[in-house]
Amino acid sequence: MSDESFASSERTRLRRLPKRGHYDRRTIYQILDAGFVCHIGYVIDGRPYVTPTSYWRHGDKVYWHGSHASRMLAEVTDAPVCLTVTHVDALVLARSGFHSSINYRSAMLFGTARKLDGEADKLRALEAFAEHLYRGRWRELRPPTRQELLATTVVEMQIEEASAKIRTGPPADDDTDYALPIWAGIVPLSLTRGTPQDDGRLAAGVEVPGYLREGETG
Amino acid sequence: MSDESFASSERTRLRRLPKRGHYDRRTIYQILDAGFVCHIGYVIDGRPYVTPTSYWRHGDKVYWHGSHASRMLAEVTDAPVCLTVTHVDALVLARSGFHSSINYRSAMLFGTARKLDGEADKLRALEAFAEHLYRGRWRELRPPTRQELLATTVVEMQIEEASAKIRTGPPADDDTDYALPIWAGIVPLSLTRGTPQDDGRLAAGVEVPGYLREGETG
Repeated sequence: MSDESFASSERTRLRRLPKRGHYDRRTIYQILDAGFVCHIGYVIDGRPYVTPTSYWRHGDKVYWHGSHASRMLAEVTDAPVCLTVTHVDALVLARSGFHSSINYRSAMLFGTARKLDGEADKLRALEAFAEHLYRGRWRELRPPTRQELLATTVVEMQIEEASAKIRTGPPADDDTDYALPIWAGIVPLSLTRGTPQDDGRLAAGVEVPGYLREGETG
Repeated sequence: MSDESFASSERTRLRRLPKRGHYDRRTIYQILDAGFVCHIGYVIDGRPYVTPTSYWRHGDKVYWHGSHASRMLAEVTDAPVCLTVTHVDALVLARSGFHSSINYRSAMLFGTARKLDGEADKLRALEAFAEHLYRGRWRELRPPTRQELLATTVVEMQIEEASAKIRTGPPADDDTDYALPIWAGIVPLSLTRGTPQDDGRLAAGVEVPGYLREGETG
């Protein structure tokens, strides 16, 4: 992983609270790799649309996929896209509403999406996605059929510009407010994986695989 | 809460998997009220931007806020906006990659944002936000100063069009795949609130308030 920074531009430079801004690949990729659901922004007839979808990263490219009938995938192809990933880490309860906040890590990427054409490229990308969610699962699955690959659109976006915004730590109250009899601090938040629930139709002898016996994500 | 539906239009009608689409206020408001972080889509010079921010709903309006110096708030004022809220409920592990999915609830709203001008309107809106996060906390806080209200922009968006997308339940595998020796089912996901951590600067005798001794959100 490179520490090199993405070029800063008018589009990505944080004007307000610049100390929360980050432009280095390491920070941005860590935020991307910690998640699997992003929000894709695109424009139709001059109006904004935001669609949630799963995504994954490989090198300096991000990927997402869906049905070849998806309107979002049709609209983003060869068009400018903003892809945003957000992790909510804590509620920050200050002694005033004004200083109350949220601890979070978010990455905002800009680029142009393009469709993957070749079957082999698609297969490689889908395997990377499955492995991102659960390392080891892909090779257990029934492999994709030719029909399924044809029905699946995978888009790839080279990250042209990117920035991250991060807030951590306790509230920052006004000096005179610390004397007030008000509880202040943070309430940690995390996206927790619960106990796997099989679908009640497992073939005889199938056990919960090892990669499902873990803790947290996000 | 009304069961009346938002008008369906080309913009919000689900073309693919129409059974996942919902247009009634009850469903959409439940999704909105279960969350507090959304993704705001807007357009600058024909290009899409997606910014995460906290939000809250009152009636058929949604609100968000920030510094009067925020670029996002300046850009969305009197402009078309898409506001999307997404809750990720489970990973859906099918016996093939093709049928693997995510259980989620998302709401996509369209409207035009406008700034709240009056101090009283702003105060009421900020109170609603605090109470949405923790009922009872607002009246404990040091009240906003005139200066803080001036420095805070609150925007209000009448929901003009809206749709929800929901996926629930186990994977839907191909009939012939159920015989395969592959684990399939769901892994529940939830945004969990952890133990509150005070900031180490509490005034003498301040205890954790009752509204912080709860369970889950999201």
